Amino acid sequence: MLGLMQDRPLSLPHVFHRAERMFGHKRLITASPAGERETTVAEWAVRVRRLATVLDDLGVSADGRVGTFCWNTDRHLELYLAAPCTGRVLHTLNIRLFPEQLVYVANHAEDEVVFVDRSLLPVLWPVVDQLETVRTIVVIDDGADAEIPSDPRVRDYEELLAAAEPFAGRFSVEDENAAAAMCYTSGTTGNPKGVVYSHRSAVLHSMVTLTADAFGLAERDVVLPVVPMFHANAWGIPYGALLAGCDLVFPGPNMSPAAIASQLERHRVTVTGGVPTIWMGMRPLLADHDLSALRAIICGGSAVPRALSEAYREAIGLPMLHAWGMTETSPIATVSTPRSHHAGWTEDQRADARARQGQAVPFVELRIADPDTGEEMPWDDEASGELQAAGPWIAAEYYRGEGGGAQFTADGWLKTGDVAAVDRWGFVRLVDRTKDLVKSGGEWISSVDLENEIMAHPAVAEAAVIAIPHEKWTERPLACVVVKPGESLTADELLEFLAPRVAKWWLPDAVEFIDEVPKTSVGKFSKKTLREKFDGYSLPS
Amino acid sequence: MLGLMQDRPLSLPHVFHRAERMFGHKRLITASPAGERETTVAEWAVRVRRLATVLDDLGVSADGRVGTFCWNTDRHLELYLAAPCTGRVLHTLNIRLFPEQLVYVANHAEDEVVFVDRSLLPVLWPVVDQLETVRTIVVIDDGADAEIPSDPRVRDYEELLAAAEPFAGRFSVEDENAAAAMCYTSGTTGNPKGVVYSHRSAVLHSMVTLTADAFGLAERDVVLPVVPMFHANAWGIPYGALLAGCDLVFPGPNMSPAAIASQLERHRVTVTGGVPTIWMGMRPLLADHDLSALRAIICGGSAVPRALSEAYREAIGLPMLHAWGMTETSPIATVSTPRSHHAGWTEDQRADARARQGQAVPFVELRIADPDTGEEMPWDDEASGELQAAGPWIAAEYYRGEGGGAQFTADGWLKTGDVAAVDRWGFVRLVDRTKDLVKSGGEWISSVDLENEIMAHPAVAEAAVIAIPHEKWTERPLACVVVKPGESLTADELLEFLAPRVAKWWLPDAVEFIDEVPKTSVGKFSKKTLREKFDGYSLPS
Repeated sequence: MLGLMQDRPLSLPHVFHRAERMFGHKRLITASPAGERETTVAEWAVRVRRLATVLDDLGVSADGRVGTFCWNTDRHLELYLAAPCTGRVLHTLNIRLFPEQLVYVANHAEDEVVFVDRSLLPVLWPVVDQLETVRTIVVIDDGADAEIPSDPRVRDYEELLAAAEPFAGRFSVEDENAAAAMCYTSGTTGNPKGVVYSHRSAVLHSMVTLTADAFGLAERDVVLPVVPMFHANAWGIPYGALLAGCDLVFPGPNMSPAAIASQLERHRVTVTGGVPTIWMGMRPLLADHDLSALRAIICGGSAVPRALSEAYREAIGLPMLHAWGMTETSPIATVSTPRSHHAGWTEDQRADARARQGQAVPFVELRIADPDTGEEMPWDDEASGELQAAGPWIAAEYYRGEGGGAQFTADGWLKTGDVAAVDRWGFVRLVDRTKDLVKSGGEWISSVDLENEIMAHPAVAEAAVIAIPHEKWTERPLACVVVKPGESLTADELLEFLAPRVAKWWLPDAVEFIDEVPKTSVGKFSKKTLREKFDGYSLPS
Repeated sequence: MLGLMQDRPLSLPHVFHRAERMFGHKRLITASPAGERETTVAEWAVRVRRLATVLDDLGVSADGRVGTFCWNTDRHLELYLAAPCTGRVLHTLNIRLFPEQLVYVANHAEDEVVFVDRSLLPVLWPVVDQLETVRTIVVIDDGADAEIPSDPRVRDYEELLAAAEPFAGRFSVEDENAAAAMCYTSGTTGNPKGVVYSHRSAVLHSMVTLTADAFGLAERDVVLPVVPMFHANAWGIPYGALLAGCDLVFPGPNMSPAAIASQLERHRVTVTGGVPTIWMGMRPLLADHDLSALRAIICGGSAVPRALSEAYREAIGLPMLHAWGMTETSPIATVSTPRSHHAGWTEDQRADARARQGQAVPFVELRIADPDTGEEMPWDDEASGELQAAGPWIAAEYYRGEGGGAQFTADGWLKTGDVAAVDRWGFVRLVDRTKDLVKSGGEWISSVDLENEIMAHPAVAEAAVIAIPHEKWTERPLACVVVKPGESLTADELLEFLAPRVAKWWLPDAVEFIDEVPKTSVGKFSKKTLREKFDGYSLPS
């Protein structure tokens, strides 16, 4: 027996038309080299309708890939809707990819056009001739002074929009499983792999950002996504904010802590989100800014350092709200919202809980599996295993079958590559990457836990732990430590600091002081690069 | 091009398994004639698994209809999950239906079994022999002293559960469009008509109850649904609360204002919901109870009287949160959450806004149409037309095609039968029922608005306005008024009170004082009965 409900697709045109009709008066504010610009959702919606016509005028195929190479701006948000609402596929290109990766992903996705911020032209232009399927480069002039090449492929965004009539009807995507957007992983091994989001996954994922225990996006919120729109949907914030009717504030190209802090204060931002690096950089500025309107600082991309979260709590009364996910999970899979069973805990225990990755949001299922046998492991906060995920916004495979299914289980779950323990309430605690554990004497040492303890030292700016081969113990940890400017620290002082904090056999066998921890294109610690750097390293006996 | 996301159905087993796994420690509290019972979600989940086996043992067909004739209890919540999670269809029978309607709907739905609270046996038993497809009556002993008939069809709920092994696997419903539940409308004309909810609609609708601008159900909430689980999914609260991980408090058979107020206070309830009648009854008790834990009093089923909402705001600092919908809309379609553009308004204007039906929740689309031409009308708060609704949890048709599609437009929208104006922000204001307007001199008089003004008089308990045929003006309003016990009121005093509040031509031509406004089986004003009562009434000239 079937239900007798209306057959209405879960597709992005609903998000657009809802915002246009009910939230036309809400604000979109964008910082740019030319100054700050404020517009309304109503004005923005007309531009989205013009842009829909532009995509037709440019001859983009019915499901053609529309590349974007842009900062977080209202213009980028125009592309976020115009491409999928007309059946095209939004392909956000990560501006931090290495040139050969950038060429690879644009060719692999067969992008037909790339929209690029003028300030980013110097990064894109050198590889343009290698982009095999791109016929047009549309420059969005953000007031930067980068030279615009005189080339028949280059068009001006504003000129195109001005010449186009706004699409007059209702956008419609009837098949909710049609592709809406795609994004390539920043894989540390092999080529980047494409994740293809459907309308259904994008819309459901947006919905979850509105739920009270996730981000709780509400009409009264003023939201500033620091997390880039060029990667993993900016955590679902742009679509979520339109669905809820929030005001949006975009930082544009200037992602400096000072610029962000100033926007947060000036626009009375209530919700913001970004990677730990941003919040570390902003920490010294907290005292000089009135951030009292903030109700949530979402932190993800890497495990939130407990000490950083606590520093915010002490300075402005607001700890970080930690969320976890990855390109393959759209990305929101868990959020570490405080729970009622934490209420009786000490402040210290609650800080521990907040530093965990948190509980799966509705519709996402998680399990941990023994990496050798694949058997499911208990949620007792002791056992740790590979974290696996299932749900309607979790990838089933990579574009064009890349990777050959190695990252998926026989029953269709995603192998996240993270190693986690889970407590009885379902709170995830990442302990490491599957390929990044230190296996000492048959036991695992969590490099993440060890890094967190090291980074709790007041003189440490950041730290990464890698495994060094060891004759007796198989592997032993090496700590690679960056000392804060103006501070000093010796290996012995650090080990003394760690001694009461970790098991004796976890203590690093050596400490190396380095200038900075190498990062991947999305700002994560690149253990791969570190391991190469310390290849052949000999530990003291 | 298709998205490459996992193909995971939106179905109720996810709600069950999520609650069982992550919220096993949360509480379910139920009042009953035998006293108050507290259990945990973990214990409840085992009983749901036993009940799944019981449904097999009773030989209920693979998609058989499982009738329930129950109050709001943890037992009813067992049925809410066990029936749909095993592929059966939960059919909540409205305990307030007239006997012939009850027989009609159980036969029309072909219920195979009916689960009934012992306290409700005296209502059900007299018609049992007329239930053509029901083979088994399962009595849930709630401690009432109603006699249990000695009859081979009668089984005891606890005995059946005790004898059944808990289902050991994972529940699975792969087709999200399969029927999960059904409920009959309490139609004021003709036979009740069946609305069939799908797993997809039930799950999406639950999700919306978690969004911040709807009910914002969160894990920290303690939720008491006064709104009956025997009709329209209790506004989605039971499934929503399980999805979010709330504590749940159930009133059982004693729905008296005193009992509800006591539970609200004792269990520090944060969210509750019910029809205006309940809140009217509780109003004199507010001063004697500490309700400081409450953050939302959801009010629906009828338009919330502005004066009632204001009385609560004055007494406990919390106005009503008005929501609107109907059986055919699952039922949540709009919620009147305050919006940022109200912030600068006066308290009086904000009270007006709160008394509106509010904005459509995500995924629900609304429009108003000229009842004669069907043409869409503008959202200017002036034009009013028939309110029509579309969305994934809005009915597409009635069970077995009843009604012949008369309540649906050619393009598949539901005609709600309500007449509304909508402001530029999408805030709906119901002005009447399509069949319940007073058409005077070619203009409409809103009987709802007029009733609200009459009920604002301190001596009026309740009032209903109906149209009386009139030679010159086509129709003119008659006010049927119930005076509060101990108060007195004359027609002239009332008209004098109304004079400065409504247009002159809106003033009722006559006032009749009655003992009570007749109600339908779900407690709505039965204008139909009133019109019959005053059939042939002659207005003073």
